[in-house]
Parts: sequence; structure tokens; C-alpha cells
Amino acid sequence: MAATIRRIAVNTGGGDAPGLNAVIRAVALAGARRGWEVFGIRHGYLGLFQEDGLIRLDVDRVEGITNTGGTILGANNRGNPFRLVTEQGVIEDGSARLVDRFSELGFDALIAIGGDGSLSIVKQLYDRYQFPVVGVPKTIDNDLDATEYTFGFDTAVSTATDALDKLQPTAQSHDRVMVVEVMGRYAGWIGLHAGIAGAADVILLPEIPFSMEAVSQKIMEREAGGRHYSIVVVAEGAAPLGGQVLGKEQETGRNVLLGGIAEQVAAGITAHTGKETRHLVLGHLQRGGQPTAFDRLLSLRFGAAAVRLIAAGDFGKMVALTDHGIRAVSLEEATNRMRRVPLDSDVLQTARDLGICLGD
Amino acid sequence: MAATIRRIAVNTGGGDAPGLNAVIRAVALAGARRGWEVFGIRHGYLGLFQEDGLIRLDVDRVEGITNTGGTILGANNRGNPFRLVTEQGVIEDGSARLVDRFSELGFDALIAIGGDGSLSIVKQLYDRYQFPVVGVPKTIDNDLDATEYTFGFDTAVSTATDALDKLQPTAQSHDRVMVVEVMGRYAGWIGLHAGIAGAADVILLPEIPFSMEAVSQKIMEREAGGRHYSIVVVAEGAAPLGGQVLGKEQETGRNVLLGGIAEQVAAGITAHTGKETRHLVLGHLQRGGQPTAFDRLLSLRFGAAAVRLIAAGDFGKMVALTDHGIRAVSLEEATNRMRRVPLDSDVLQTARDLGICLGD
Amino acid sequence: MAATIRRIAVNTGGGDAPGLNAVIRAVALAGARRGWEVFGIRHGYLGLFQEDGLIRLDVDRVEGITNTGGTILGANNRGNPFRLVTEQGVIEDGSARLVDRFSELGFDALIAIGGDGSLSIVKQLYDRYQFPVVGVPKTIDNDLDATEYTFGFDTAVSTATDALDKLQPTAQSHDRVMVVEVMGRYAGWIGLHAGIAGAADVILLPEIPFSMEAVSQKIMEREAGGRHYSIVVVAEGAAPLGGQVLGKEQETGRNVLLGGIAEQVAAGITAHTGKETRHLVLGHLQRGGQPTAFDRLLSLRFGAAAVRLIAAGDFGKMVALTDHGIRAVSLEEATNRMRRVPLDSDVLQTARDLGICLGD
Amino acid sequence: MAATIRRIAVNTGGGDAPGLNAVIRAVALAGARRGWEVFGIRHGYLGLFQEDGLIRLDVDRVEGITNTGGTILGANNRGNPFRLVTEQGVIEDGSARLVDRFSELGFDALIAIGGDGSLSIVKQLYDRYQFPVVGVPKTIDNDLDATEYTFGFDTAVSTATDALDKLQPTAQSHDRVMVVEVMGRYAGWIGLHAGIAGAADVILLPEIPFSMEAVSQKIMEREAGGRHYSIVVVAEGAAPLGGQVLGKEQETGRNVLLGGIAEQVAAGITAHTGKETRHLVLGHLQRGGQPTAFDRLLSLRFGAAAVRLIAAGDFGKMVALTDHGIRAVSLEEATNRMRRVPLDSDVLQTARDLGICLGD
Repeated sequence: MAATIRRIAVNTGGGDAPGLNAVIRAVALAGARRGWEVFGIRHGYLGLFQEDGLIRLDVDRVEGITNTGGTILGANNRGNPFRLVTEQGVIEDGSARLVDRFSELGFDALIAIGGDGSLSIVKQLYDRYQFPVVGVPKTIDNDLDATEYTFGFDTAVSTATDALDKLQPTAQSHDRVMVVEVMGRYAGWIGLHAGIAGAADVILLPEIPFSMEAVSQKIMEREAGGRHYSIVVVAEGAAPLGGQVLGKEQETGRNVLLGGIAEQVAAGITAHTGKETRHLVLGHLQRGGQPTAFDRLLSLRFGAAAVRLIAAGDFGKMVALTDHGIRAVSLEEATNRMRRVPLDSDVLQTARDLGICLGD
Repeated sequence: MAATIRRIAVNTGGGDAPGLNAVIRAVALAGARRGWEVFGIRHGYLGLFQEDGLIRLDVDRVEGITNTGGTILGANNRGNPFRLVTEQGVIEDGSARLVDRFSELGFDALIAIGGDGSLSIVKQLYDRYQFPVVGVPKTIDNDLDATEYTFGFDTAVSTATDALDKLQPTAQSHDRVMVVEVMGRYAGWIGLHAGIAGAADVILLPEIPFSMEAVSQKIMEREAGGRHYSIVVVAEGAAPLGGQVLGKEQETGRNVLLGGIAEQVAAGITAHTGKETRHLVLGHLQRGGQPTAFDRLLSLRFGAAAVRLIAAGDFGKMVALTDHGIRAVSLEEATNRMRRVPLDSDVLQTARDLGICLGD
Repeated sequence: MAATIRRIAVNTGGGDAPGLNAVIRAVALAGARRGWEVFGIRHGYLGLFQEDGLIRLDVDRVEGITNTGGTILGANNRGNPFRLVTEQGVIEDGSARLVDRFSELGFDALIAIGGDGSLSIVKQLYDRYQFPVVGVPKTIDNDLDATEYTFGFDTAVSTATDALDKLQPTAQSHDRVMVVEVMGRYAGWIGLHAGIAGAADVILLPEIPFSMEAVSQKIMEREAGGRHYSIVVVAEGAAPLGGQVLGKEQETGRNVLLGGIAEQVAAGITAHTGKETRHLVLGHLQRGGQPTAFDRLLSLRFGAAAVRLIAAGDFGKMVALTDHGIRAVSLEEATNRMRRVPLDSDVLQTARDLGICLGD
Repeated sequence: MAATIRRIAVNTGGGDAPGLNAVIRAVALAGARRGWEVFGIRHGYLGLFQEDGLIRLDVDRVEGITNTGGTILGANNRGNPFRLVTEQGVIEDGSARLVDRFSELGFDALIAIGGDGSLSIVKQLYDRYQFPVVGVPKTIDNDLDATEYTFGFDTAVSTATDALDKLQPTAQSHDRVMVVEVMGRYAGWIGLHAGIAGAADVILLPEIPFSMEAVSQKIMEREAGGRHYSIVVVAEGAAPLGGQVLGKEQETGRNVLLGGIAEQVAAGITAHTGKETRHLVLGHLQRGGQPTAFDRLLSLRFGAAAVRLIAAGDFGKMVALTDHGIRAVSLEEATNRMRRVPLDSDVLQTARDLGICLGD
């Protein structure tokens, strides 16, 4: 049954993902078209209690932001309303206060754009208070089972692929081994997609524990075939079989704290093959920048669909993409299951068919 | 049942689509990994009968081509083998000769990368001769019902969106109306996706006959709201209700052949609104260039999957993408149905929610 | 002698050029740093007489605009103050009124960003009234003799070169001749630079009248050498020897008005060589979009230098770039001489050394 | 006096720089046009003594490489011919042998593309043996006094600026301080140009020793002004006044070897301001990728000009760019003086005018 909606709010939580502003714009325009007032809540939920915490998102305010990175609302992970930390350092439940405040301000519904953590919070609000909320998934790692794609992922893959494109010719002409670290703590989608698209020789993922022997063997095989260079893509969450990378320093018994996984893998390759190896951590480059056309469209579809759900009074849901279009899934289903790279995925099989070493 | 494969061929037909070389590379590498000899047939089927018509696609030959545009095999639409034109100008059926020649050259299977036309030909070869063929769909317009995406489409949308990004600030600061023509003769996917992602104000598609009144009204509404500029995206196959654009020249009775649809729409806008209007035809820019990461991955998955089908002896099929991965569909199903933008698509609904005029 | 400056204004005139906003930002920040109030005049000089015609350019207002296209001040060619058109259609001299109004509003100096036309106007204002003005050159064609580079040019060349990069592989694999029209009405710098950087086979410039015979011969030579494709870059101001392109239609006596020069050259090539030929007009794509790093830096240097000139009371000058840095030239010198491609330029010689046909 | 030239060679030395292949192509085409045979020497000078050490650079071989990164000749720093290391580990002078071998192979002249080291070697060859050589400068850092620009620099600046563009919105919306390390061991051109173009708040260069106090004060001033984010660009060769960055670890007396300068500066900022700070090292991304249009043109001009010098018998020279075009300078002059950022440069002044902190 359709609710009578007059005023809605939208907020964003967690790390950056290209497309956030496009979601916000779609919410603002699709709301305006229905005659609603639309407000953005700044800094997570804190904005509800701050003087300048609300931004009126009229049509002018959201002009020209489809293709921008960042979020015009700011983002902020502080403040799980169920576990607020008071000035005295005591943890208390502020959820009822939040729900009341939301009503007091005249809001009829909330669109919450966020990752696993943020969506779990709104799920609790919905479960306990029938809080009128619709979720929009945000995870640059694309690791949510309920949706085929999340926005920001395509941009991150593009940025990582561009980086590989830049490194390839130098590696080839200057006989280099380069190890490139990409995002992906629990799921290796970015590394897998960018690694294949960027013609990497080795791709190491959280889903497949790797052995330095397998990696080094691949590099030496290429060497034997006259290819004195290799590109290794490693997801930040990749880990060696048994948990240890054997770098030169460790072999000689020196107790050295190496940096991230890319640095460790680079040291391991040098130790095993004797080849000079460089590493590069792409880091925040992957989270930033203008969203790709793909991510913009997905963001706009998500935002518009969230507004349609609110118009229909269909709360407690999250918008998701399938190959038949946008659908609504319950927040229950949405926050339930992570999507890691399945070992029988045709994408993994493609990597193997291309001769890419997956470290196993 | 798996066939014994030793030597395969791959060819490409029809217009350019970014990702062709990535498909070829995947076929070459996935074939090499199985110990097969892989050859490319140049210039469609003609290459089978020409001295230099076959290129051995060994691992070195396909190095570094994942991110390149064009096709290393060349392309050529001449020569439907069922309707060859002899030097005397007589049309004859050369299909049996083609099938024989293919065998003589020792080929066990063909991977045919092509659009509707090319796939219809291999379907006939398969139907009549049980010709051992697997198809890979190629249509930059993404208008094939059997697959969620085809390669090249994402690149075309990106190129068109980039163009809109370039035009927006000039239009805004210099009070311009700009009409941009994009590809899409029968289906408006490129215009729809790029138009939404590029924040167009009007999008005209083959699926929705437009009226110049609706278009002009949108521009005048914006004008009244202080926005003295507008961006109009028009698919090359868009057509006005009743089949005529009323431009100034036609109103004054002069008999002038205007150019493409963009030029006509621009003239119509000027006639209706008095605003100076420019048009731009993106043309071949959309077919060229380096494929996006998305298109590269899709192309590589298609190529590798086609090789797996051949290895399984599963001929007469085409590879296709669903949200559950790559699957095989019959060539019958593949060539059967075009995918136009459904009028109930959530993407169309998104456009309307954003306030975009669709000309109706 | 340094003037006492408290409040300055900046305006932009003429067509778009990527980097305008960066100039404005530099003016605003460099002014703020000196404690000045900085205002932007909207819509050319009209803004001085309109209620909302002035924008306070404080530090917040110019944040984040370095890399944006367009101009936050809007642009507008109406209103040469020396030749204002009254509502009765009479032309009158409004220059004294402009100068008075400027004073009334408390402005101590003006930074005028503009092309030949705009700079001529401020030169007259300076000559007649000792109007306190400094000019910043704006011509995307880079055709000003007093400065090595103008902003926007590098971006235009990059955009045109990208287009050629996109077209090359398609042309090559699909045996196409493509004619690409770029900006350059009087000077061929964009066509020359982009054509060389984008590996064109023929480049036609305003400076060198071309013959269709020479162009066609080049294409046929390539054909004979097994290269069945060619890329022709033509500046909008290029013209044939004797003033006429002989296309097929004209040969057969039909009286057809062909479109722009690209279309004419394409028709001419088809007429001479029989090869199917496509044309593409890049148009406004070249004026828009984010400025390149080169153009941003140049714009910021120009803006900051203009402020330094004002601080020094050094009016009646224009900022210009030499290989020894920014210098000031008199507006006299600035507006005096156009820079066309010299026939003894090493860039032209480079084109010939690369085997590029220049149409002569 | 012009020499009779029939066969020339070209080699590349040192690290990668986008544009190398464009130089090679220009040499090949400009040589071919004069009827010369042109060969590339692989792997520095070693190629002269190896079976597969020479590549015939005919027109086909250099097709399509203008816009590619890397070098088709490979690169290799081993082998200063004046200080060859024998298998017995003895250092000996192989220069006479090199000169003889060069003659034996029938070469009339060499074009040496290289940095300071490589050019010093050819200068010695020229001085001692009148070796017929022309140099083309290659330093991505643009730190050669004799030429206004070197190729690769504009591409490196573009890549670094793109990275800053990506980081800016995330920093702003997520309240981050980010430290980005760019190339520039002795001269800070890349950091200065990219930092200004990318709207950095702090730029640290080798030319200006910095104090952590100044850097931190700038960040706290921004904080006080409501800007809870900052972007710091640091050249790899930047160094603190007195030689030490005071990071938290060092203050607490722990003896920790921090990584590169970016990591040290980030730690220092956290120590001084308490703000969470991330760092990113762009590294090899800056050396790779497709050259910008600017760099392609410069490379092609250099290559063509080098051939013209050889044709004129004008050996012992290096090609260089001035604002009046390409000129030849003596290798003496070329290798004599490094170009660091002059403290009175208008570019530095621009940075200060924009409010950028230079660490002093």
C-alpha cells in the first residue's frame, strides 16, 4: 500500500564509492517529480541533531553532480545509533531517540546508502521500529550476493586496469616484474576482473591461498620463453597457503616487518627467482574519481528505484540489480550473504584458459 | 560428446566493435592451452581461398592486443557463401565449396564472431552441413535478446557519455542547445544509457516516436526555469511521430534535403523555440578505440567459453552472458529475436524519474 | 608605480576554452591573498548594469573549479560597449558609461579574459580612458603571435588526437578512408599538432591551399603499398587551390550544396579514388571538457600573473608565455599580429619527414 | 657539410619515458624518406655484438607505435663502453671496439636517445673518436637546462594530476589528509606542475627544504577554516630542513626505519596534527602509458630533427626545444647543466599566489 509521502531524507555511510552523488541526484530528482521535499543528512545520522546537519536537495543543488566523485553529504562512520558513545565514554542505545528525531523533523522515509554495516543498522531500525527505510547497496568490492553489481566497482576495475595498461609496456621493454596491489579484502572481484582485463600474468585472490612456488614458477616459465617481465596482481586480502610469504629477509633470519601483501609478494619473488621486482599499491586511487558511465547509470537506477519503493510504501527493502532489471530484496536477504568469487566461476576458468597463474 | 580437436579457425565479420581482438586472443590462448593449432581467417571467408588468407595465431601473435581496437584479422562483409556473386555477375551457392575447403585445410571447428548477418550464415552452415561452428555475438548496439551484454557496447556508451561530459559545461556557460546523434538504428540502448549517464535533457529513441512539440516544450520549460541550455541525445534510428520533423525550411516551403536525424532535430528546435541549436554526429568514434575493462573481460570470457564449447563438441551454439555467467544458446535462439528497449524497462522509468523528456 | 587596489573585477568573453575557470580561480585566490575583493562580471559587460550581474569570487566560490570546463561567469558576445545597439536599433557609444559605472561600483581594475575581439575592446578602453585593465589571452586556436601558448589549445589537440586514436584501428581493419574536421579557421595549429600526434596520413591547413589530386595520389600510393586505409585531417579553414573541391556531384554537373570542408574533401576523395570515404566533424567536442594538466597550469599562471600586474599598477598589458616564463606585452602588441603556421616551421618539416601529405 | 649517409642506427638507454617509440618512428620514417637503411640497436650497445641485436626499422616495423609506451628496442643500462666489466671482473675500455664494430656493420651515424648518463657517453665517443652521433634528450623529470621540454614529462604530469583529481573528492567528502609521492629526485618539476594543476594544498620539492611545522600549520589553518582535508604532493627527492622528518615513532624514541618520503611526511603530519593521514606512491605509473599528444609531437619533432642533423653532417649535437622551434645544441652544453626549479620562477610564484604551502 502506498504511503503518503511529503518529505524524505537520504544519507550515505562508509567509505567512498564513485556513484554516490549520482544516487543522491536521482533521489532528489525522482522525489521532486513527486512533489516531495528531499533532504540530505550530513555526516551519517549525526546530522539529524546538528544545526547545519540537513541539506535541502532541490533541483539546483544536485545539478552537475552525476559525474563527480565523493559525496556532497560527507561521510562518517561514527555513530551506530544502537551503540552511541557518550561523552562519559558509556555506550548507550540511541536508536529510539533517532527514530523520534526523524519524525519530529517531519520525515516520512529514509533512503540509506551504505555498505554491510550501514545496512545492518537500518535493518535493525526497520525490525524494531518499523522505521520507513529503503536501502541502496554500496560496496566497491562488489561482494554482495543479492545484487549482480554495485556502483563504484566498475570504476575501481577501470582504474586498476588503466594502471596495468600503463605498467605493461614499461615492464616489457625494461624487463621488470611488477606486483600491483588492488582492493579486495574478502572478495577478489576487483583483482580478478582488472587482472584479466589488464593482461596480468599472475592474479592472487582472497579466495585462493597462493604458494610463492607457483607464482615463481610462472615467472620462470615466462623467463624461459623469452619473456623477461611479468605483471602480478594481488588483492589486499590475498594470503599465502599456510599464512607466510617467504621473502629474502625472512630466509636469512632477519626479523623484518614487511609492509602490505604486495611488498611481501615482491620480496618473495625476488627471493625465489632472483629477479628485481617492484611493487605498487593503488590504494585510494580505486575509490575516487569520476564514475564510469556504467556506474553512473547503475547509481541513477538505484536512486530512482529507491524512490519508487518509498512511493509504494514498500519499506525494509534494498534495491538490487539482476539481468532482468532492478528488483527489491528484503534487508534480511541483502545483509545476509557475501558474494565471493565462486571457484567454479567461468571468470576464473577464463583466467586459467588465458594461462594466468592463480597461485595454486 | 567431446570431439577430437587439433586445429581450429576463427573469423570476424561486419562492423568494428571494441573487444574483437580480445576475443581473438582468448581463442588463441585457450586453444593453445589445449594443444590446438589456431588460425585466423582474414577477410571473412575469402581468406580460406587466398594464399595469405590464414594467420597462425600463436601465443606471440596475440600478445598485447587485449586493449586494442579494430581486428587483427581485418573484416569484410563481402561473401555470403550461400549467395556468392561470380565474375559474370551470377549469384550461386558456394556453401558446399566452403565446407569442403574448410575440411581440406584440416580444420576441425570454427569460431565465428559476428552480428546477426554472420551468425545467420553459420546457422545455415550448421543446419545444412552439421558444420562444426560456435558463434560469438558481436553487436555494438547490444540488441540481441539472447545475451545481457555484447562487447563493444560499454565502450560505445562510454565514448558517447564522455562526449556529453565535454559538451555540458560549454552548453551551460554559453547558453547552447546541442543535439548529439549516437548509434542505434533499431534499438536505442546506446542513446538511453549514455543519455542518462551524461545527464541529457532529452533522449530520442527508435522505440518511442517523438514529437517536436514535446521536445521543444521541454527546452522552453528549462528556459523558463532559468536554464538557457539543453542537451538532446538522438539515436540515429529515432523518428518523429508521423515520420516528419518540421524544421524551419520545410515550414517556409523550401524543399531542402536535410542531413541526418540530429541535423533535422536541431532545425526543428530552432524552428519551434527560436534558440540557436548545434548538432554533432559521433559516428565512428563510438565503434573505435580501446575497449573498456568491462568489454575486455566480456570479450575474453566469450572467447574462452567458445573454445570450451568446441572442446566439448557442442556445436551450433552461441555464447551468451546472463547474470549467472556465460551460457550457451542455440544459434536458432540467438538469431531469432532482437532486443529493443522495453517500454516498461526500469531504465526508461529512471529517465522519466530524472525528468528527462523522451519525446512523447 | 603600484596602485592601491581594493576591489577588482574579472570577465570572460567569446567562445569556450578549457581553462577559463582555472584563470578565474587564480585571479580570485591571488586577489584574496592581497586582501582584495574580487568579483566576476557575468555575461560580458552587461553584468555591470544588472542586478545579479556580479558574483563575489571568494575562496569558497572558486573551490574545485580548476579542472572544470565552461566558465562560472557565463559568456556572451553581445555588447561591444563602443557600439551598443539601443532598443530603437540605433548604434551608440556606451564606453564612457561603462567606465563610469565601473568606478561607481568601486572597482580599481579589471582583468579581461578574451580573444582578439574582447582584447581590442579593452585596448580601446585603455587608450581612450586609461582604463585600468590587464588582459588574459583566450584563443583555442593558439593563433596569437605574442604568446607561445594559449590555454585550451592543448586540450583541443588532445581531444582531436584521442579521436584519431579511436578511428585508426577501425580504419585499418575495415579498409576505410576517414576525413576528420578540426577547428582552425585561420591558423592550422590544432590540425597540424593533432594530425601529427594522431598519425594522420594527410593534413590540410588554412596556410597551405591543397589540391585534391595531391590528396588522392597519397591515398592511392598507400593503396598500392597494401595500406587500404587513410586518415585525413582537415582544418575547418582549409581551402583548395583555386577555391573549389571537385567532388563527384560537381563533376556530373549537378548543383549540390555540400556541407563543411570535411564532407567536401570526402566527396572529392571518393570521386578521385573510388574509395568509400567517411567524414566526421569534431566541432564543439574540442572546446569542452576538463582542461589538460598543461592547460590548467598555464591558466593558473596567467591568472596569477595578471593579478601581479595589477598590484604593480602595470595596466594596458596582456600576460603571455615565453620559454623564459610569463611576461607582459602591451595590448597593442597583443592584438596586433596573428600567428599562423610558418611555412618554414620545423613542425611542418616534421610532418613532411614523416611522409604526411600536406595537400601541396 | 653534408655527409653521405646510407645506413644509420638508433638506440635508447635508461629508464622508460612515454614517447620513446614516437622518436624511433620519426627516425625510421625520416630516414626512409632519404633512402637510408635504419636499424635499431637492442639493449643499449650490446646489440652491436649480438646476433639478434639489430632490428631493421622499415616503415612497416614502426607502424602504429606513435601512441605506445615502452620502447620496441628494449632498454638496458649495462654497458658503459668506456668501463666494460669483463667476465673476470676487470674493468676495461671497450670504446674503440664499439666504434670499430659500428663501422664494420656499415653504419654512418648513430642517434642516441638517452638521459644524462647515455649522452655523456656519446659525448666522449664524439670527443675522442669524432664518432658521428646526434643525441635526443630523454629525462622524464624535465631537468635539462638546454631544452624547454623533454618528452615523457607532460605524460608524467598528466598521470600525477589525474591521480590528484581522483583523490580530491574522496579527501574532501571523507575528511582525509593524503600525501602523494611523485617522481623528481633532484628537480621538482613534476611535483610542482602536477601539484598546481591538481589543486594540492602543499607541495614539497627538492629545491626547497621543508619544515614539518610549516606543513602542519597549513593543514591546521585549513582545518580552522572548515576544510578538514588536505592534499600534500611530495617529490621523491624532497627533504626536510636539517634532514629529518619528525614522525611520532621518532619522537617516542623508537628506532623505526620508515619507508619513502611520502610515508615519512604522512607520519609527521599525524604526529603534529593528530589527523589520520594516508600516503600513496605513484611510482612507475608516471613512466608508463600512452604519451600525451604533447609528448608525441615533441618526440616526433626530436626524431625528425635528429635525422636532419645527420643529413647535414652536423654531429656532436643534441636536439632541443625552444619557443622558436627545435634547435641543435652541442653535447657539451647539453650535458653540462641540470635545470632545477628556479626560486624566482613564476610557476613557484603562482603556487604561492594560490595559497599553496611550499614547506618553507
